[in-house]
Amino acid sequence: MESFAIGVDLGGTNLRVALVTSDGKLLEKLTTGTEVARGRDRVITEMSNDIRSLAEKFSTAGTLLGIGIGVPGIIDMSTGFLRESPNLPGWENYPVRDEIERRLGTRVVLENDANAAALGEKWLGAGTEVDDLAMLTLGTGVGGGLILDGRIWHGMTGMAGELGHFSVEPDGHPCGCGSLGCVEQYASATAIVRMARETSKSSNQLRRAVHDNPEFSAKIVYQLALQGDEAAQQIFQQVGWALGIALAGLINGLNLPMYVIGGGVASAWDAFAPAMFEEIALRSFVYRATAPGQTGKIERRHTIVTRALLGSDAGLFGAARLPMLSAEVRDHDAMRKRA
Amino acid sequence: MESFAIGVDLGGTNLRVALVTSDGKLLEKLTTGTEVARGRDRVITEMSNDIRSLAEKFSTAGTLLGIGIGVPGIIDMSTGFLRESPNLPGWENYPVRDEIERRLGTRVVLENDANAAALGEKWLGAGTEVDDLAMLTLGTGVGGGLILDGRIWHGMTGMAGELGHFSVEPDGHPCGCGSLGCVEQYASATAIVRMARETSKSSNQLRRAVHDNPEFSAKIVYQLALQGDEAAQQIFQQVGWALGIALAGLINGLNLPMYVIGGGVASAWDAFAPAMFEEIALRSFVYRATAPGQTGKIERRHTIVTRALLGSDAGLFGAARLPMLSAEVRDHDAMRKRA
Repeated sequence: MESFAIGVDLGGTNLRVALVTSDGKLLEKLTTGTEVARGRDRVITEMSNDIRSLAEKFSTAGTLLGIGIGVPGIIDMSTGFLRESPNLPGWENYPVRDEIERRLGTRVVLENDANAAALGEKWLGAGTEVDDLAMLTLGTGVGGGLILDGRIWHGMTGMAGELGHFSVEPDGHPCGCGSLGCVEQYASATAIVRMARETSKSSNQLRRAVHDNPEFSAKIVYQLALQGDEAAQQIFQQVGWALGIALAGLINGLNLPMYVIGGGVASAWDAFAPAMFEEIALRSFVYRATAPGQTGKIERRHTIVTRALLGSDAGLFGAARLPMLSAEVRDHDAMRKRA
Repeated sequence: MESFAIGVDLGGTNLRVALVTSDGKLLEKLTTGTEVARGRDRVITEMSNDIRSLAEKFSTAGTLLGIGIGVPGIIDMSTGFLRESPNLPGWENYPVRDEIERRLGTRVVLENDANAAALGEKWLGAGTEVDDLAMLTLGTGVGGGLILDGRIWHGMTGMAGELGHFSVEPDGHPCGCGSLGCVEQYASATAIVRMARETSKSSNQLRRAVHDNPEFSAKIVYQLALQGDEAAQQIFQQVGWALGIALAGLINGLNLPMYVIGGGVASAWDAFAPAMFEEIALRSFVYRATAPGQTGKIERRHTIVTRALLGSDAGLFGAARLPMLSAEVRDHDAMRKRA
């Protein structure tokens, strides 16, 4: 009989719930607006209903291994509380995991959404061939996740992987985290819009776009860059510069085989990747010693910096993977006890 | 019967060979000048002779588990070659490990010296209570080592742990590694001397020290700082600033329980630590969430940034530890096969 898990990706705008088999097939996905404004309890009720309805629908098809939930915030892994979550007001210091477990009567694994995305890419995306990777998710902010030896690296209190908060410019733009010049301030969608407003004086097109379009976004800056607008192109060079500095530090420090760039801004890869690779090569002798050659042929012991493959589903697949890994650990322990 | 290992610390100036028991007692230490100038083969002969003489002297006292050698350079762990070693000219692309194994007829574990120091501090120094730590060794350069789950984190090609080459000032001082503004350019003994020369115009004392003393060194700058020379004090604030930025990035990325500062410059802790902690607190929300309280009382789940405890012996103890860990792995494998 097949086994599967339910993954939940709780974003600031969408709530997505999916049933995924243990070999990575997505059987069904439910998407609803999170409507965070309606409050924590409504969102949790909605989520629980979606999970229950999927579980019931497939109850005769196989074994449900558990539920994994990716959440935009910092999770205390030992208590299952959200420690910080700017995008989910009212969720802090609330026993999220226990509350959902109580409602569903099933074990729930809670995880930071960027960590879940990294696990998803490791499982079914760019990282299927490696055991270790770092992922940067470029969205409203810049999230990060580290996979070491095939597992999410949580660190001491579950706060590891905050790769969006490396300082790349010590006296740079103030960051919501309290620091200055974090990579998030140059490589997130929010930062792209800010930089576009700051530099809109130097480009007629950019100025017009900023003023005329009430929904001015990073995507519009990218379209202008594609159309040859130099000011817009320079903004993406800044994105690449910031990512390159952060990645060079990661490569020198961790010497992983793979670094994955995901999130919405990763769609602008062509616009920022050249500056990013230039900066990595300048700043990381570890990269220079292990970079793929000019042929582009990728071999073992090459350092790969690449785009994510699963798009916005990375976090959803990663969330579904969480209870499967816990189950593997349990199986392994059981085997050892039996041996 | 007791078991022990021989550790070797091959520095640019000294060659040290020690016999250490598996519970961490140093039974004997031989120190000779490396005299790197006399050439690679002379140094290897000297090292082999020292190892042989210690092994023979204690041959009836217990079991020799193996030999570990810490080397200032980047080691290809799979081949035992030195890939890069600025302080050991002529050693690159030479089969160091195999050559010593051939001469001694014993298994040899080769390791980067900063990695060995981190392992030493984990085993017998500041890190005995933790499984994970990062260590920065502030000497001629800035070396780094990462211990994850009790083991040295080598990364894909053995080049991990190059923590001295995080960019802390993107357009900063050029570094020997090819990058700009590496932490090594602000926190090494070499950098302190350079910064003192650069700023000597603003301090009479500093100018006199630079010009009058043919052996002007980081130590003299520290003495001036202790005596209240503001220019000298500012140099150490710069050291703390650079370390703080690098450590904040590490804390945000890895969320380890401990970060250890060693090497000769660590003796100036009082002069650079205040600026370092200020910078860490500013730049790492992970640190702020886990910092020890004002009481200074250290608890589980606190992030500790502290001085190394083993001084210049950290690398020597760590080197001796290497064959012990390999032996443990072998024992464990043998047990599993028997089970």
